[in-house]
Amino acid sequence: MEFKVNSRILEKLLSHIIPAVPTRTPMPILENFLFEIKEGYLKVSATDLEIALISSVNVSAEEEIKIVIPARLLYEVVRSLGDTQILFETEPNSKLKLTTENGIYNIGFSSPEEFPAIPAVTKEKEIIISGAELKKAIDQTSFAMSKEDMRPSMTGTLFEFSEEGLRFVATDGHRLVRYINKKIKNHKEEQYIIPEKAISVLSKLLTEDEVKIYFSKTNVSFYIGDIEFNSRLIGEKYPAYNSVIPLENENEMKLKTNEILSTIKRMSLFSTTSSKQVKFTIEKNNLEVSAEDIDRGSNAKEKIECMYKGEPMSIGFNTAYVHDILSHVNNEEVIFKLHSPTKACIVEPAKSSENEDLLLLLMPVRLNN
Amino acid sequence: MEFKVNSRILEKLLSHIIPAVPTRTPMPILENFLFEIKEGYLKVSATDLEIALISSVNVSAEEEIKIVIPARLLYEVVRSLGDTQILFETEPNSKLKLTTENGIYNIGFSSPEEFPAIPAVTKEKEIIISGAELKKAIDQTSFAMSKEDMRPSMTGTLFEFSEEGLRFVATDGHRLVRYINKKIKNHKEEQYIIPEKAISVLSKLLTEDEVKIYFSKTNVSFYIGDIEFNSRLIGEKYPAYNSVIPLENENEMKLKTNEILSTIKRMSLFSTTSSKQVKFTIEKNNLEVSAEDIDRGSNAKEKIECMYKGEPMSIGFNTAYVHDILSHVNNEEVIFKLHSPTKACIVEPAKSSENEDLLLLLMPVRLNN
Repeated sequence: MEFKVNSRILEKLLSHIIPAVPTRTPMPILENFLFEIKEGYLKVSATDLEIALISSVNVSAEEEIKIVIPARLLYEVVRSLGDTQILFETEPNSKLKLTTENGIYNIGFSSPEEFPAIPAVTKEKEIIISGAELKKAIDQTSFAMSKEDMRPSMTGTLFEFSEEGLRFVATDGHRLVRYINKKIKNHKEEQYIIPEKAISVLSKLLTEDEVKIYFSKTNVSFYIGDIEFNSRLIGEKYPAYNSVIPLENENEMKLKTNEILSTIKRMSLFSTTSSKQVKFTIEKNNLEVSAEDIDRGSNAKEKIECMYKGEPMSIGFNTAYVHDILSHVNNEEVIFKLHSPTKACIVEPAKSSENEDLLLLLMPVRLNN
Repeated sequence: MEFKVNSRILEKLLSHIIPAVPTRTPMPILENFLFEIKEGYLKVSATDLEIALISSVNVSAEEEIKIVIPARLLYEVVRSLGDTQILFETEPNSKLKLTTENGIYNIGFSSPEEFPAIPAVTKEKEIIISGAELKKAIDQTSFAMSKEDMRPSMTGTLFEFSEEGLRFVATDGHRLVRYINKKIKNHKEEQYIIPEKAISVLSKLLTEDEVKIYFSKTNVSFYIGDIEFNSRLIGEKYPAYNSVIPLENENEMKLKTNEILSTIKRMSLFSTTSSKQVKFTIEKNNLEVSAEDIDRGSNAKEKIECMYKGEPMSIGFNTAYVHDILSHVNNEEVIFKLHSPTKACIVEPAKSSENEDLLLLLMPVRLNN
């Protein structure tokens, strides 16, 4: 068997597939690429059993083969070559021989029998979305996924189809984000939970190009250009997040986003490491933000101008969570909607575009004093 | 006590001093800046007992003070403020109060008694060198310092004064670099060994500006603009490195530096992890570089054009060391001077400028076969 391929083209292909190769695994076979030559295509696949990536490129080859090759070694070799033609040949001693103008590289390959089958996703549900829009939805929400395995559903991002639009929801119990893409409407309410690993790989694969998504009950497939990206879904029920979103938070405070964000950054230097508490003392058109680190005997307070309609109020937050939320408001001005110091606070951009809706929710912390 | 200072000016000053603040230390007092107001100057110092940094800025203050302040907290606060005036006031409860237009920040300070005295360097020997030239000398040599504490002198960089020039030498026993700045001549041979930490901090402080250096028997001081940088010297004898530099390596091979460097990068993927061995097989005008990873069953070889005057030879090197050496040749073409497969190999740039001399030395490794 032999075929030729340009190093730059192969490098690009392999760079798309390598994210599915696990760095540490009890199954060494997963550290390989599956290489298949069939019907004039070289198809390369990898999987860590949770996600799988597949892509292919035209090659002219006479024979068909199916072998597995050490993924990182091959990728690093191809990447380290300049722009050159590579001749691939299989040798009788289970070596894959790469020949370039100046060099010869032999890499051991194995037979593909042990390589796990990548499950085909039944195309029960198809949607088409712009890559840029999907990327925006993910970038707005993924930070809020839970890092704790206690409730597996919350470690992923919810894709919820509805008549209102496609809702992307992430929460860890302390904060929640709901981003709605109103262009993708569905008569039936349906929920799919995509694991964190898949979200993070997907975010890097997305371009401006259109994406086709297929959902089955257990798996999801994304088709992005030449790339097929599969992931298992989290087979749990997502928490009834709607019940924690307050309907009437009548006290509204409007602020410049970058002003409050830069204040929060300074307060994080003064809040006690364990509690990370920051206090908002709100009066008409004036917000005082303060923090105190009792262990180190330091404290700070700042005044920020705001527009406030409501009762004077003192409310505590975790600096890290306020910071995360404010970093994702994506608008010059931000609105805090409050009810009381013990009830969830809604954070929203002052303006949002026609086809989207962003709601951020922040749980307060009990003030020390 | 009170004084005013601009946040950007203070940030710049503190950024120069913070490298001397240790990140982990059994002496918490070292995690502070020493702040002194005296004769219209604010002088800020820090030390980890091995190195010390001192700088000052004009301020108008009526009283003199001397206090110690948590270094990282103060630096982070000042850095996080925009361009603004900061009013500093000491409060009776051992708090330093910073006031800006919108905020008030209180940081606990302590008395300076426990803060270690920074030794003044007796100005026994003074030299003046351009910052750019000193930086070049350090960048050319520092990579070869030993990481192992077995022989303390080799963990630093040797500054050796001589009639030929100022020699900078670093070695870990596997490779050696000697860089000579021929502009700085001295009648007497003198040796000073600067520790690794000081070299690394110095490299970041250097600019185009002139540097004044003072040596005493135990310490060295660098004056760079407003900054005074002190370090202890390593009080050991430097190994007699001249005895390992071969005088007659009669076989000479000239190569394009980037070609051999990129070949070595690929070979490092194929050399056995434990030995990192790469083999050079040299014949007239032809170099074959090869490596084999027996554990993984992979191997590689490449041919490179060269100009070779000498006997055909096979010689082994450690890929990591060849790579380091070639990365510091600093010339389009490189010359390998060889004697035999068991003797030290000299690596030199094909051309070097009038006022400098660079010699790199590489110990071969015994070939497997």
